[in-house]
Amino acid sequence: MSVTSDTESRRPSTPGSPWGHRPVAELDSETLNTLDRWWRAANYLSVGQIYLLANPLLQTTLSRDDVKPRLLGHWGTTPGLNFLYAHLNRVIAERGQSTIYLTGPGHGGPGLVANSYLEGTYTETYPDISQDAEGMRRLFRQFSFPGGIPSHVAPETPGSIHEGGELGYVLSHAYGAAFDNPDLLVAAVVGDGEAETGPLATSWHSNKFVNPVQDGVVLPILHLNGYKIANPTVLARIPDDELLNLMRGYGHKPHLFVGGFDGEDPAAVHARFAVLLDEVFNEIADIKAAAADGNTDRPAWPMIILRSPKGWTCPPTIDGKQVEDSWRSHQVPLASARDTPEHLEVLHDWLTSYGAEELFDDDGAPAPDIAALAPTGELRMSGNPHVNGGLLLRDLRMPDYTEFAVDVPAPGGAIAEPTKVLGQWLTEVIRRNPDNFRIFGPDETASNRLQAVYDVTDKQWNAGYLETDADDHLARAGRVLEMLSEHQCQGWLEGYLLTGRHGLFNCYEAFIHIVDSMFNQHAKWLEVSREIPWRRPIASLNYLLSSHVWRQDHNGFSHQDPGFIDLVMNKKSEIVRVYLPPDANTLLSTYDHCLRSRDYVNVVVAGKQPGPQFLTMDEAIAHCTRGLGIWEWAGTEVPGEDPDVVLGCAGDIPTLEVLAAADLLRQHLPDLSVRVVNVVDLMRLQDEREHPHGLSDRDFSTYFTDTKPIIFAYHGYPWLLHRLTYRRAGHKNLHVRGYKEEGTTTTPFDMVMLNDLDRYHLVMDVIDRVPGLGSKAAGLRQEMSDARLRARRYTREHGDDIPEVRDWVWPDSGDTGTAEGGPARHATTDTAGDNE
Amino acid sequence: MSVTSDTESRRPSTPGSPWGHRPVAELDSETLNTLDRWWRAANYLSVGQIYLLANPLLQTTLSRDDVKPRLLGHWGTTPGLNFLYAHLNRVIAERGQSTIYLTGPGHGGPGLVANSYLEGTYTETYPDISQDAEGMRRLFRQFSFPGGIPSHVAPETPGSIHEGGELGYVLSHAYGAAFDNPDLLVAAVVGDGEAETGPLATSWHSNKFVNPVQDGVVLPILHLNGYKIANPTVLARIPDDELLNLMRGYGHKPHLFVGGFDGEDPAAVHARFAVLLDEVFNEIADIKAAAADGNTDRPAWPMIILRSPKGWTCPPTIDGKQVEDSWRSHQVPLASARDTPEHLEVLHDWLTSYGAEELFDDDGAPAPDIAALAPTGELRMSGNPHVNGGLLLRDLRMPDYTEFAVDVPAPGGAIAEPTKVLGQWLTEVIRRNPDNFRIFGPDETASNRLQAVYDVTDKQWNAGYLETDADDHLARAGRVLEMLSEHQCQGWLEGYLLTGRHGLFNCYEAFIHIVDSMFNQHAKWLEVSREIPWRRPIASLNYLLSSHVWRQDHNGFSHQDPGFIDLVMNKKSEIVRVYLPPDANTLLSTYDHCLRSRDYVNVVVAGKQPGPQFLTMDEAIAHCTRGLGIWEWAGTEVPGEDPDVVLGCAGDIPTLEVLAAADLLRQHLPDLSVRVVNVVDLMRLQDEREHPHGLSDRDFSTYFTDTKPIIFAYHGYPWLLHRLTYRRAGHKNLHVRGYKEEGTTTTPFDMVMLNDLDRYHLVMDVIDRVPGLGSKAAGLRQEMSDARLRARRYTREHGDDIPEVRDWVWPDSGDTGTAEGGPARHATTDTAGDNE
Ligand SMILES: Cc1ncc(C[n+]2csc(CCOP(=O)(O)OP(=O)(O)O)c2C)c(N)n1
Ligand SMILES: Cc1ncc(C[n+]2csc(CCOP(=O)(O)OP(=O)(O)O)c2C)c(N)n1
Ligand SMILES: [Mg+2]
Ligand SMILES: [Mg+2]
Repeated sequence: MSVTSDTESRRPSTPGSPWGHRPVAELDSETLNTLDRWWRAANYLSVGQIYLLANPLLQTTLSRDDVKPRLLGHWGTTPGLNFLYAHLNRVIAERGQSTIYLTGPGHGGPGLVANSYLEGTYTETYPDISQDAEGMRRLFRQFSFPGGIPSHVAPETPGSIHEGGELGYVLSHAYGAAFDNPDLLVAAVVGDGEAETGPLATSWHSNKFVNPVQDGVVLPILHLNGYKIANPTVLARIPDDELLNLMRGYGHKPHLFVGGFDGEDPAAVHARFAVLLDEVFNEIADIKAAAADGNTDRPAWPMIILRSPKGWTCPPTIDGKQVEDSWRSHQVPLASARDTPEHLEVLHDWLTSYGAEELFDDDGAPAPDIAALAPTGELRMSGNPHVNGGLLLRDLRMPDYTEFAVDVPAPGGAIAEPTKVLGQWLTEVIRRNPDNFRIFGPDETASNRLQAVYDVTDKQWNAGYLETDADDHLARAGRVLEMLSEHQCQGWLEGYLLTGRHGLFNCYEAFIHIVDSMFNQHAKWLEVSREIPWRRPIASLNYLLSSHVWRQDHNGFSHQDPGFIDLVMNKKSEIVRVYLPPDANTLLSTYDHCLRSRDYVNVVVAGKQPGPQFLTMDEAIAHCTRGLGIWEWAGTEVPGEDPDVVLGCAGDIPTLEVLAAADLLRQHLPDLSVRVVNVVDLMRLQDEREHPHGLSDRDFSTYFTDTKPIIFAYHGYPWLLHRLTYRRAGHKNLHVRGYKEEGTTTTPFDMVMLNDLDRYHLVMDVIDRVPGLGSKAAGLRQEMSDARLRARRYTREHGDDIPEVRDWVWPDSGDTGTAEGGPARHATTDTAGDNE
Repeated sequence: MSVTSDTESRRPSTPGSPWGHRPVAELDSETLNTLDRWWRAANYLSVGQIYLLANPLLQTTLSRDDVKPRLLGHWGTTPGLNFLYAHLNRVIAERGQSTIYLTGPGHGGPGLVANSYLEGTYTETYPDISQDAEGMRRLFRQFSFPGGIPSHVAPETPGSIHEGGELGYVLSHAYGAAFDNPDLLVAAVVGDGEAETGPLATSWHSNKFVNPVQDGVVLPILHLNGYKIANPTVLARIPDDELLNLMRGYGHKPHLFVGGFDGEDPAAVHARFAVLLDEVFNEIADIKAAAADGNTDRPAWPMIILRSPKGWTCPPTIDGKQVEDSWRSHQVPLASARDTPEHLEVLHDWLTSYGAEELFDDDGAPAPDIAALAPTGELRMSGNPHVNGGLLLRDLRMPDYTEFAVDVPAPGGAIAEPTKVLGQWLTEVIRRNPDNFRIFGPDETASNRLQAVYDVTDKQWNAGYLETDADDHLARAGRVLEMLSEHQCQGWLEGYLLTGRHGLFNCYEAFIHIVDSMFNQHAKWLEVSREIPWRRPIASLNYLLSSHVWRQDHNGFSHQDPGFIDLVMNKKSEIVRVYLPPDANTLLSTYDHCLRSRDYVNVVVAGKQPGPQFLTMDEAIAHCTRGLGIWEWAGTEVPGEDPDVVLGCAGDIPTLEVLAAADLLRQHLPDLSVRVVNVVDLMRLQDEREHPHGLSDRDFSTYFTDTKPIIFAYHGYPWLLHRLTYRRAGHKNLHVRGYKEEGTTTTPFDMVMLNDLDRYHLVMDVIDRVPGLGSKAAGLRQEMSDARLRARRYTREHGDDIPEVRDWVWPDSGDTGTAEGGPARHATTDTAGDNE
């Protein structure tokens, strides 16, 4: 009893009309048989990859030499992944439903390679791996083999946007891929071990952030194979009703499917599962239809729980120990396949159990009926363009950021909140790019002062509404996604970027460390992808880190950590960029650059509090283009001569302190020749041989001199600057002030004083380091030391910074002091507005 | 209708017989009134801390100058926390139940300080903050004030083991505290925003790992106040049945309590909640009783959902906008309390609404009935000894690790798996310390080869069992906890340590980055605690990182990241230690030291694969005591003369490559004087002014010379070594090889070649850097280059390392090559056993 009479109608090569509802009936035995044959073929190809060097079709007796000397990879998860792949293919082909397949347990690499090989995309991508015996031999050999391909579903694998080596992110990635792809289905397999990770456990709630009309659909499939590496899994060992409640509690309609146990006939399993899958696709179709009809209430999206034996179809026991349906099947059962005849024989029997001779022709090509099960062209999950996002990437329509410039009549002559200004420009980015740009944040987008964006968009929210929400910018669709999970923000954005869109993640600086490991994985993905010719460039991953270490006013020590930059620097220089714009105009120019870039991770740290503005837009553009520059107006150099000292700065607060120090020096040591160098692009400090943005040694010497003291006020942990510059001729003269892990809830100036980054201390550093100045400037040094004590005492008495610091303005800045929004501050502007 | 007739019976000062079942009845109005008075007093004290500089009892008209110039902190969560505190106090006093209180939203700092002040512990701890008007003034003033206390529930706060600045870990900490504390109740408040984080979302499953007999009880209280910083929360906006299902799915018996809305009389709320709390305590008592009777099945532990308005009791609206029951109450409502008369008046009315004059006497002391609500002595939640774990810390009974030594007849003369040897010693640690030492791991304890411990203990597991589990070391109680969540492992261990116990966390090196931010927070906790005299030292947080970057054989690039060390180095040197023992005996000696240490974070990176052993136990002890040392047997120095080159190494694989390079140099350049220095304690490389373990400049020069080339093979990212040594005289001669982010699934030697850390490349580095060697050794250089190519080609052909590398042994090592377990390897030992 076939649902369709005509094979061709099952096999459109481009997406058909998606989300169609189709009658459900048991499949005819021929289709069931083909499904099983696909599954067996994929399993055979998977086992072959793990074990075999040669003799792929077992055309001669399997010998020790056919077995790889190093047996690397993971079998346990693979048969389940292959089972799902086969069944999805049948449905996709029938419905013409554009679908991609993400596997949380990315260690099932051989399975995904096998399916792509059966679909033909593998050979299209790598012609050497042809669909014949020789191609199959290469396919087997290359797996986890030196010079070959990795064991995981890596960038090398067609169809992958999810390596899955570090477990926990498959649903976040899946939802990221689904946003703004209304016609796309993302089938996402969650490992039951993976489900124990924190990021995965919260990512089920993604369904409260997806819009059934404008976004695609994620179909989560919990792969309940019972085990992880060496233990049972929690979700496999709670009673069914608990598990079903959990899924309902997550907002899903769960479908529990149990198959493959107690010698159940595979045909029966296929028959039951095929019906379930059709039902689930129909449920999705119904939801989509209702949504199209205007029902925007959050639906209970279906999800599938597939309870099946781990290692399904491998030898039930080996050496007297249970392997199938046990954690023992996780990695490579039969470790001694090459070393002992007993294991070799077991391997032989295992391989032959799939009946390869019925699945592949004598040349080694997949039998025609198997090949015909798959959809064709872009409907193949391994050939869907969404998994090579660069193919679909459209440039953003970029508004002219110079139109959002802060008017800076003179350096220091205006006050602005940099991220707020950025928010105004982002408003226009959003307006012009209504379907391929999103902002992600863990409940901090307003706190980080990007709230201007709510003038043109809303926060997408599909949980419940109250009447009082009317003014709160919550809506069923919107460009901003806010969930209190840095993991989700990162994962969603990654999925969104990998499928060819653009976005940014705004986050408190300290808590971006929560996604250190996710950053690592994405960076590695980019590092590898760049070397793969068929992977097209994607938009960069852009961070905006605000509420940074120096201005976490409401919080304290736990919120003070500028170390993400250090982490980032360990990744390959080709893909990492770090920017520390000192004011609003430089922030605009920097971010414009970031949103245009490709295949990078851009880290931008910027302030949100009102602060002095230094550069006009034209100056900012020039400054950002250079990445660093001498601020002549701030120094006292004599043209044609080396300065006596260089004051370097990177970051908004360090820049402020350096300028205040330069002002003090100018007043008190008018004969001292001071150069002020501001660095926006931190990579400029590195050697040009280490980083594409690196300055040549000559340029470095030009900016910083080889012989004069360099007092550098840096935003983060000071040691990083030494690491970046240790090869420079002038490094021996470099003295860095930065965050040295001192802090608490206190005033802004107290924070810099606690870390010796304050203006007074910088002046003392100059006095201590400029040859010959020491004793001559002893009086000034003492004055500075007294000024620190006075400032400290003032904070202790008044709970605020001393007016001489708080109200300090750059001397040539004009009448800012009295201008509206000027430094004459009051409690409100100082501490309010963090969640407005 | 009072449950007890006699106040005293409600107020034992030391834990009574816990887990008693008591009849539940409505409280008498007097007790209800006292509860409300406590709550009002705590709320008043909280508001006072946020806003007031002076005039704490409003004995004169509230003036602008009484208000702090910087209004910092968080109100929204505080009244809910105070409400729970009051009610718990009533029950604790009645039942004599030892209880501690952890608040996920640690930004409710003022509330916890207020309650501790009411309990008297604050004044006992800080006598200056006396229970009178002057003390109250200081209490108010110090909060979020320069030189005062932080805004969060920081180490400074009596009763705290959980700062709660970075959200997400409260349940993990709570369960960590509960393990092996059978009489302890841990009340853990989860913010509904916090509940959206990944770590929190999985930590509910902790209940599958707790034993109802031998462990304490965690009572999770979901604080459903509806909002986070600027948004509603997911859990507050799903239907009740979904939320209840979610909690049931997590294995809990949820009790939903709604109170404080629509002007409900507080007395009614108190009455209802008190009954609920008694019922919940009785449910817990029943579970405990059943468990004591031998019912070890996992119970459905009760949990409470408290739905109450955020900012409860603050002005309902301010400036026409809703504040109470809105996200607007999150931080500091009334930002302009000092700046505008309108806001000042609102503040005045808010403060007076609590009726402080009825709650405190004229001197400012809490009214006697309020004080009497609290239990006394160690039953006060802020005075419970478990929250100052050092008080309860017992030294571990340490077995003699030298008895577990690997016999090393000559350097390189034995083969061992270092972590496996460590596991044998840990077996004895466990045996001797059955109730205060635990091992945590994300399903990797066997993979990291510590499985010997299962000879004496089991994996604690309270989810379901199958018959087939008999041999799998799962049991209702055991010293090992394995859940596939690095966050849980870290959080559990932190909670365990902070309450005065010992443990270690074993993890794949790459994935320890998952807890970077948790490490940061714990390090900050230790940094601050060390400066607080009443905080007693606790056991160090010990990491064992294995399956490291160089030997992630089954996996690939995603599993290769040695950067955790870099992160750790940014924290204060007093508390961080990093060790890279090169073999089993040094690992034993190192770990013995770690388990004895206090208040540190010890990071130990060690290999798990079979490898050559270099030092006898005596040598290992001396080497580890020094932290580094010259391996004379490996070098070719002429006594009394400087060597021509120093080969440095840190880490097992770099050490192996350096020794092989030294062997090559000895053979091919017998006249070259080579010194080999191995570093176990990485901190030794730092300046003694930077780190307590740092070498003096003089010692550094002695080891590494000031003038000779130093070729250093380092385990991790090479730049770190430059950062550590840039001030040393010899730094200009330092050339570091390490992991430069090249990798995939390949052979061990291919991995080191990919990163130029291999023996052949090290020899080339020596030739390139020893003055005068270049042209003389050109032939050897070419040979080395050819050897690399040959080795590379061999891997590509055979999928294994070339025998000359694989079977290389240190020349003087004796007949290891043929010894059992010697380097004559086969596929089985090479790649098997990762999950046995
Ligand atoms: C975050 C993280 N921690 C640890 C590991 C090591 N690891 C690799 S596979 C695995 C078990 C996975 O179990 P499951 O998700 O159930 O996958 P399956 O059973 O399908 O293989 C573990 C712990 C990892 N890959 N990622
Ligand atoms: C991991 C993390 N991300 C972001 C923040 C910033 N933050 C501070 S409080 C808060 C909202 C907390 O909401 P909830 O847990 O509901 O607490 P409550 O409503 O009780 O204040 C956020 C997002 C944080 N502290 N930790
Ligand atoms: Mg599993
Ligand atoms: Mg809340």
